[in-house]
Amino acid sequence: MKTREEYIESMRNMHFELYMFGERVTNLVDHPIIKPTMNCMAATYELAEEGKFPQYQDVMTATSHLTGKKINRFCHIHQSAEDLVKKSKMGRLLGAYTGSCFQRCVGMDALNALSIVTYNIDQKYGTEYNKRFLKYLQYIQDEDLVCCGAMTDAKGDRNLRPAEQPDPDQYLHVVEEKPDGIVVSGAKLHQTGAVNSHEIIAMPTRAMREEDKDYAISFALPADAKGIIYIYGRQSCDTRKVDSPNMDVGNVLYGGQECMVVFDNVFVPWEGVFMYKEWDFAYELVEGFASYHRQSYACKSGIGNVIVGICQLLAEYQGIAKASHVKDKIIEMIQLNETMMSCSLACAHEGHKEPSGTYMVNTLLANVSKLNVTRFPYEIAKLAQEIAGGGLVTLPSEKDLKSSKVGDYVAKYLKGAEGVPVENRIRAMRLIEDLTMGLGAVCYLTESLHGAGSPMAQKIMIGRRIDMDKMKNAAKRLCGIKP
Amino acid sequence: MKTREEYIESMRNMHFELYMFGERVTNLVDHPIIKPTMNCMAATYELAEEGKFPQYQDVMTATSHLTGKKINRFCHIHQSAEDLVKKSKMGRLLGAYTGSCFQRCVGMDALNALSIVTYNIDQKYGTEYNKRFLKYLQYIQDEDLVCCGAMTDAKGDRNLRPAEQPDPDQYLHVVEEKPDGIVVSGAKLHQTGAVNSHEIIAMPTRAMREEDKDYAISFALPADAKGIIYIYGRQSCDTRKVDSPNMDVGNVLYGGQECMVVFDNVFVPWEGVFMYKEWDFAYELVEGFASYHRQSYACKSGIGNVIVGICQLLAEYQGIAKASHVKDKIIEMIQLNETMMSCSLACAHEGHKEPSGTYMVNTLLANVSKLNVTRFPYEIAKLAQEIAGGGLVTLPSEKDLKSSKVGDYVAKYLKGAEGVPVENRIRAMRLIEDLTMGLGAVCYLTESLHGAGSPMAQKIMIGRRIDMDKMKNAAKRLCGIKP
Amino acid sequence: MKTREEYIESMRNMHFELYMFGERVTNLVDHPIIKPTMNCMAATYELAEEGKFPQYQDVMTATSHLTGKKINRFCHIHQSAEDLVKKSKMGRLLGAYTGSCFQRCVGMDALNALSIVTYNIDQKYGTEYNKRFLKYLQYIQDEDLVCCGAMTDAKGDRNLRPAEQPDPDQYLHVVEEKPDGIVVSGAKLHQTGAVNSHEIIAMPTRAMREEDKDYAISFALPADAKGIIYIYGRQSCDTRKVDSPNMDVGNVLYGGQECMVVFDNVFVPWEGVFMYKEWDFAYELVEGFASYHRQSYACKSGIGNVIVGICQLLAEYQGIAKASHVKDKIIEMIQLNETMMSCSLACAHEGHKEPSGTYMVNTLLANVSKLNVTRFPYEIAKLAQEIAGGGLVTLPSEKDLKSSKVGDYVAKYLKGAEGVPVENRIRAMRLIEDLTMGLGAVCYLTESLHGAGSPMAQKIMIGRRIDMDKMKNAAKRLCGIKP
Amino acid sequence: MKTREEYIESMRNMHFELYMFGERVTNLVDHPIIKPTMNCMAATYELAEEGKFPQYQDVMTATSHLTGKKINRFCHIHQSAEDLVKKSKMGRLLGAYTGSCFQRCVGMDALNALSIVTYNIDQKYGTEYNKRFLKYLQYIQDEDLVCCGAMTDAKGDRNLRPAEQPDPDQYLHVVEEKPDGIVVSGAKLHQTGAVNSHEIIAMPTRAMREEDKDYAISFALPADAKGIIYIYGRQSCDTRKVDSPNMDVGNVLYGGQECMVVFDNVFVPWEGVFMYKEWDFAYELVEGFASYHRQSYACKSGIGNVIVGICQLLAEYQGIAKASHVKDKIIEMIQLNETMMSCSLACAHEGHKEPSGTYMVNTLLANVSKLNVTRFPYEIAKLAQEIAGGGLVTLPSEKDLKSSKVGDYVAKYLKGAEGVPVENRIRAMRLIEDLTMGLGAVCYLTESLHGAGSPMAQKIMIGRRIDMDKMKNAAKRLCGIKP
Repeated sequence: MKTREEYIESMRNMHFELYMFGERVTNLVDHPIIKPTMNCMAATYELAEEGKFPQYQDVMTATSHLTGKKINRFCHIHQSAEDLVKKSKMGRLLGAYTGSCFQRCVGMDALNALSIVTYNIDQKYGTEYNKRFLKYLQYIQDEDLVCCGAMTDAKGDRNLRPAEQPDPDQYLHVVEEKPDGIVVSGAKLHQTGAVNSHEIIAMPTRAMREEDKDYAISFALPADAKGIIYIYGRQSCDTRKVDSPNMDVGNVLYGGQECMVVFDNVFVPWEGVFMYKEWDFAYELVEGFASYHRQSYACKSGIGNVIVGICQLLAEYQGIAKASHVKDKIIEMIQLNETMMSCSLACAHEGHKEPSGTYMVNTLLANVSKLNVTRFPYEIAKLAQEIAGGGLVTLPSEKDLKSSKVGDYVAKYLKGAEGVPVENRIRAMRLIEDLTMGLGAVCYLTESLHGAGSPMAQKIMIGRRIDMDKMKNAAKRLCGIKP
Repeated sequence: MKTREEYIESMRNMHFELYMFGERVTNLVDHPIIKPTMNCMAATYELAEEGKFPQYQDVMTATSHLTGKKINRFCHIHQSAEDLVKKSKMGRLLGAYTGSCFQRCVGMDALNALSIVTYNIDQKYGTEYNKRFLKYLQYIQDEDLVCCGAMTDAKGDRNLRPAEQPDPDQYLHVVEEKPDGIVVSGAKLHQTGAVNSHEIIAMPTRAMREEDKDYAISFALPADAKGIIYIYGRQSCDTRKVDSPNMDVGNVLYGGQECMVVFDNVFVPWEGVFMYKEWDFAYELVEGFASYHRQSYACKSGIGNVIVGICQLLAEYQGIAKASHVKDKIIEMIQLNETMMSCSLACAHEGHKEPSGTYMVNTLLANVSKLNVTRFPYEIAKLAQEIAGGGLVTLPSEKDLKSSKVGDYVAKYLKGAEGVPVENRIRAMRLIEDLTMGLGAVCYLTESLHGAGSPMAQKIMIGRRIDMDKMKNAAKRLCGIKP
Repeated sequence: MKTREEYIESMRNMHFELYMFGERVTNLVDHPIIKPTMNCMAATYELAEEGKFPQYQDVMTATSHLTGKKINRFCHIHQSAEDLVKKSKMGRLLGAYTGSCFQRCVGMDALNALSIVTYNIDQKYGTEYNKRFLKYLQYIQDEDLVCCGAMTDAKGDRNLRPAEQPDPDQYLHVVEEKPDGIVVSGAKLHQTGAVNSHEIIAMPTRAMREEDKDYAISFALPADAKGIIYIYGRQSCDTRKVDSPNMDVGNVLYGGQECMVVFDNVFVPWEGVFMYKEWDFAYELVEGFASYHRQSYACKSGIGNVIVGICQLLAEYQGIAKASHVKDKIIEMIQLNETMMSCSLACAHEGHKEPSGTYMVNTLLANVSKLNVTRFPYEIAKLAQEIAGGGLVTLPSEKDLKSSKVGDYVAKYLKGAEGVPVENRIRAMRLIEDLTMGLGAVCYLTESLHGAGSPMAQKIMIGRRIDMDKMKNAAKRLCGIKP
Repeated sequence: MKTREEYIESMRNMHFELYMFGERVTNLVDHPIIKPTMNCMAATYELAEEGKFPQYQDVMTATSHLTGKKINRFCHIHQSAEDLVKKSKMGRLLGAYTGSCFQRCVGMDALNALSIVTYNIDQKYGTEYNKRFLKYLQYIQDEDLVCCGAMTDAKGDRNLRPAEQPDPDQYLHVVEEKPDGIVVSGAKLHQTGAVNSHEIIAMPTRAMREEDKDYAISFALPADAKGIIYIYGRQSCDTRKVDSPNMDVGNVLYGGQECMVVFDNVFVPWEGVFMYKEWDFAYELVEGFASYHRQSYACKSGIGNVIVGICQLLAEYQGIAKASHVKDKIIEMIQLNETMMSCSLACAHEGHKEPSGTYMVNTLLANVSKLNVTRFPYEIAKLAQEIAGGGLVTLPSEKDLKSSKVGDYVAKYLKGAEGVPVENRIRAMRLIEDLTMGLGAVCYLTESLHGAGSPMAQKIMIGRRIDMDKMKNAAKRLCGIKP
């Protein structure tokens, strides 16, 4: 297992073709906008370091079912419901530790979904995807690598299927088959943690029909393979990391990252191909990945810890922590936050074993869990802004506080309760600003809404997974309607 | 274990002093208002009958840790987190089976709480309550009895503590100590399933101080002991059970029940006394019982099954099941319903072992779970009324439908989709009326709100159980505030 | 103008063919279930009595634009935005006075809508409907009569248009044309105040196409005309008015009423026909009536007064009125209630003059107003139940309170704050029960939801009435998109 | 009346002592962060220009009751309820025109409140404040000036009254009385439009007692008077205006502004003093100003137009405008937006005349109106993010779109529906980003929450303004409780 430092060092050796603000970025590791996101990914290594955090070993590490070695849980294939539960708890732990999207769950969810689907494809078609996949998995586990799980295609005209698109690249697809592999083109959007990853794993984004079979592909590649181009997404307040990296940025340690990832005639060797035109398994992979990934949003309960904590703290700084309406708001934030966590735990505890041996969450409850995550963080953020007060959006800058001209005024008039340094009050407000309308809001709010599928995606799956006949029959009996 | 019929027969032998509408009721078992509530309690026996419902044995029965015999789970002391999970599932199963409050969980929760607290009192004071309690428990298990858990006192002036009340009876208390037992007076309000029970178990309703020690008592008695008077509570639409017991009543099989229970100088032998003036354990018993009981509201997810099922059915009857707004409402009902269930499951799965060996739910999550139950059924009921349409409150009576004068008009103009008998449509609407504003609403709505403690009670406990320092520290680190 | 007593006397002379519980009802005026609803209608006369309520003259009466005489505002055609505002205020006044649906607004709204549409039809087709209508209107004004506005048809298969229904009676239609009038058949459902009315005014329930023209009819008739059959709708707790008309019924004075109204080959003389096959005006009449009627839901803010008042009162009785969470709930109830009222006022103030001279509300805002009414009463009712506590559904009956056997127990254990008669506390709880799950809930909740059209009907009209191009253009300019 | 250009020119002549990011700013008019805010203020002049916008004359201008001349409505004292209504409509018009806080209403509300309170003080104390005020008012009207209304003090320890603060400057107060005027010290926080104003009008921030009388002061000064120091507040994404002023900034034309305003021993001549130690009128001024200012939030319905429009547009660009869930969300946004507007209209229409002749809004409804504004924009913003999709927070920058290296990729993979330029789609998303988490969110969300007082301030005033006795009496009568 890699240490935090070893991970960062390993990133120095990657050769991404990355663009940001129209320019090629070469030294990613030290780029002020990328660095906090890399530190955030690094936290998934750091908390697994036995020497540093012995108390988290149980949650952060697991025993490989392939090699029996201790591995980072993010590389693990869930072998029990207990594993699934630990995954939820790991998400919350890291969410609370980073106050951000730590970006590594996508790859874990992709690996687990592939462990099931490659097995099932082999059962039906006599292929050897699973064997190939397990070899790949062992490499990932042994080297303790980050995989970027890439699913969302550009989609072009939403009313057309993949094969019907005027521009075939609107869904990632195979453009050429060669003896030693395939050539693919297309793009994956909104890719979390893309240039903090060692590997990239592509999956189809939707159910496919036979005519779409060129689009029914899944494969893994080094993330800096030739022909993969990354374009960095803007985030609210992104450049504050450059010009005011200290107080004004709110979360002074961590951040998240999304890229547009373009595959421009990229070659994939056969050993990295895990699905190839088995269109009838595309939806299974989508649903499997989506269900795991919806469970993963337990991380938002971790960020919830941070937002509850900072609101309580700020209320104390402002001398209003005992006001009944403040207490009520704090409790409400906890209520929403723990409800989210409970749902993630429930879908894990109620998991089951797939034919491949992998444990899968209860998919109904995983979708219920995520659908709550598309709602509650917005309510929590609103409550946080209520507690914070209007200063949230009118605070002078750190430079004003530290200015010889007006610093004394700022300090004098932003003083809170007795004994509280004004800087603390400002830092607390900036963290709330960050989480509700800045960089942090990107992952706490909008990503909660659309990540792992927008609300409608969860609603559709909930509608499919519910046993409606059972419910109708229960009702019929009670009101005397004959079966 | 008793069968459904044996239970009902056993009730014939009880000699309750019961009043309803100002009159003494003698034959409870055949009284049209009480009968559906007794049938509902009887369902807790019926579903445990191996011959009838082999598929429910795992959920409905357990192995006594005292005798090793198979017992009804309602008499069981939880020996594992798995037991707690099965308890939640049993609640949902019965909620769906009865569409009502089946009334037996209160006693189960009282027994489990007492199994912990009697042990802890003994540890501190060298008493023998636990031994006494276990003897009583074995009797309950062997005879498969229903216990009514009695907690809520009248409370008089809310601003005064028990010992300060001008009328000491506002909290149940000991009025005399005798060689062979104690004499108690007071009342317990809102007692669910009171006259469907074999036994009654009294507990204090709040934390006590030393001066309140006469009020810090817990004991068990036969429910028809001398001096206990029951006054039956009115419910919305209660007399429809008398005058229109068929279609108009909605739920034609089951119902719930609450009584005011007066203890007028009742004698309790020592062998039934489980707490006697150990005021410092009163709150522990309250919190233990409340936490278990808040978990028990999983039953409302069972009623949720019924309300979702009947809405889907009625939408089909009315030919609107495919309308997108109807589908969206149904999914929303499921979302809310499964969120409630998930929370109940989570607090069970995350349970822990108490010194006595009993498993206790995660109290934070149990309160979170119940607080959701105080909200979501109201939203679900509103959605159900939206789907049902205005006919819900303007439907002619069953007698009109069956009348030779106007029956044909009613049938003609209430006809729904092709092939659906008009009676089915009416029955479906009546069940929704029942669950949202009739007898069923009493237990689906108001009881969800106030049963096991009103929302403020849950909020207070959530505030106590959260680890706020952990949250504040997580936040401080991220925004650079020194610890 | 009639007095309250003259109105009731006039009702004695009506010869309705009414059925309830499968039986013909002859003496409606003294029937315990109907009487409170008639008293409620009578309140619309009573508050207009100058001698009794001089303070309400401005709101309750108007000057006829036909005759210049003082008339009851319910018979008035709105001549200004101020008239529309007074209409909203009259609704709230009566809602607060009766705590119920007073049933008379439907006819007022029908008259006003017809005053516009008959004029417009005449303009297009050279007919004389408006003249005929004004003659009828003068009769209504002079005699101070109640009109039942009848719109909602049975509708049969929702996926078929009127002319496509297998059973033509699923929409009210003309079956025969005679020299002196027409013969109609069909039914109108959910007719509020039906057997408290002197006249009935039928209108189409939806937009029509040419093939539906037999269904595009509007007419007025005496409510007890030959061939009209009324079937009384059941309401939650309806029979409590019979068996416990005093305390247990909650609202001891008033109630609402809905009937199924069957037209079985009813003859309508030409002088009562206001639309006859002008199918292209059907939607205009529907929209006009609906918009007026959606404004009318200001009455629910009046009931809101009652529910806010009773909650405050009960909180005082229970000694919890100063608790911050109680105060917060009360404020929230007011907030929701006044928001509803504000919207009704706004659509009135923003009214405009139609070609006929009649003032029409702002239809966009009228729909917005009603859509809030489909939501907020449910929230208010939930808050009321929160304040009331669980006693709401477990209270013993009035007969228990007055019983020599258990009356003392009931009085002792339901005692509230010092000096408050226990009867008052019970009465307050019963009124909350009534308004949230009993008779009152029928009109405060379900009628708020579905009366004047279900939420989807308002949403559709809002979508039609918004000027989306204006909004898109405003947005385009700001973000630099070329027009 | 000034034109847009004359206003901007007049700003060049102001000599503010302004600091931003710790540096003195001299050329405000051309500063990239300030310029959009000044343009926004300028819109209040532009829309009043008869030659440019004849259609808005009625709303944007008024006739001075002092001089009979046409003036900008922002300088007008409301002479009728109709004036109040036009004020609400002016707010919405400008909100829709700028998509931002246009900052000029604060001064208008201060002037109107002072017109009432100076009159009332004179009535009680025989002072001549009103005469002095009217002279000042005429100057403002004649010169068409912007006034910054300054109310919110720093407040120090929230649990202490002004006179009890260890640091007296925590509330603005008089430090010295001179023959020709007074010297004041303190600060006003969150001052909207501060350095876009010609004048500043200070008012007390709360009720005062006699011991606080040095704090009970109100006065007007040129905004660049000696001793007034401005410190510019940071806003989410503020520096995007500098580095990406074109597409990425969302709203490419306008923005809002807040400053901390320090009064460091500032001299105020007597002719600008409108309240001086009349502590018993401090609350009246606060309430009057607050009520007017709460009405002013009609502007947010104008921004609502923009957000509804951009969501509809983006849905069309993305080819999803006909999806039922999208239509439903758009309608919901309209519903919330029009409800806010209706409440602002209602409090205006229901206004009344004060003794001074000025019209005051209905204060209950003004508070109800604002309390909705603290809620609905958050719901609307959430819906907007739902419609926008995840691209909102992962979009590459404008520079990427225009880059020769990756511009083609960006254009190819962000292509929306046929025929829609990709730039339009990006611009639409950026505007939604702006309004929900960027610069626009500052005024659309947080300012809606805390501007004109936080929600608790409105709740308190609602509690005071409701006639609870009337409500209790209505309830008592209905349930038979004796008065």
